[in-house]
Amino acid sequence: MNQNNEFYTLKGYKLREDNFLTEAMEDYLEMICRKQQKQDFVTIKELSENLNVKPSSVSKMANRLKEAGLINFHKYGKISLTKLGIEKGKFLLWRHKILKKFFKYINKDEYNLKQVEKLEHFIDQTTLKNIALFLINHKI
Amino acid sequence: MNQNNEFYTLKGYKLREDNFLTEAMEDYLEMICRKQQKQDFVTIKELSENLNVKPSSVSKMANRLKEAGLINFHKYGKISLTKLGIEKGKFLLWRHKILKKFFKYINKDEYNLKQVEKLEHFIDQTTLKNIALFLINHKI
Repeated sequence: MNQNNEFYTLKGYKLREDNFLTEAMEDYLEMICRKQQKQDFVTIKELSENLNVKPSSVSKMANRLKEAGLINFHKYGKISLTKLGIEKGKFLLWRHKILKKFFKYINKDEYNLKQVEKLEHFIDQTTLKNIALFLINHKI
Repeated sequence: MNQNNEFYTLKGYKLREDNFLTEAMEDYLEMICRKQQKQDFVTIKELSENLNVKPSSVSKMANRLKEAGLINFHKYGKISLTKLGIEKGKFLLWRHKILKKFFKYINKDEYNLKQVEKLEHFIDQTTLKNIALFLINHKI
């Protein structure tokens, strides 16, 4: 049987992927990139407020992102994206924008942030590309 | 700020939901329902083979589904869905069918089981309903 036609559990699919970013890492990276479009640095406090998580959880995740080469630490608890972080972060923001537009269309303008934020981690590159094409072809 | 416009991490969204089925429970329930369309009972061995997981993991999950009132145990390791299990399972199969059709359309007939299996847990009821309407309106 072709591997693409075999059922796995969600955990099973995840174990078979080589994406080194977890969903949580994506959520943080996307928010850091969103903030950095308007300011040079982002603080732990800001991320904690914007993502509705405890500052201790942000610190823990910041260390993981640092280890993965995605962010740099600066004085006074400030964070900035590395070149790799900017590249990945920009992709995440683009993905968010495309899916926001698409689901706003599907849901007749009832834009639901929660729906996009939940789904975006699980959209394959091919589907994302085809959704972007769908939007262009339908002048959306 | 309206709660619908606030960002959370994926974990944050999950903690705020009242869906008592985890993604793993949905995967198992969907498969049991799929099998039960053709046979009266499903065995641990069959689920293990069809979902590509270890029999010990299936047994553990079967106990959770039993506790949730979704399946009944029978002699010789056989399982069947309860009335509630059939209701939930049928919804999961319908959701799968709708999303399969939709992403086959978006991806120009390159139907990708993995894409649907990953996404389906995170599609809201409203989006699902609107996707079903989209398919009807576009005669897909």
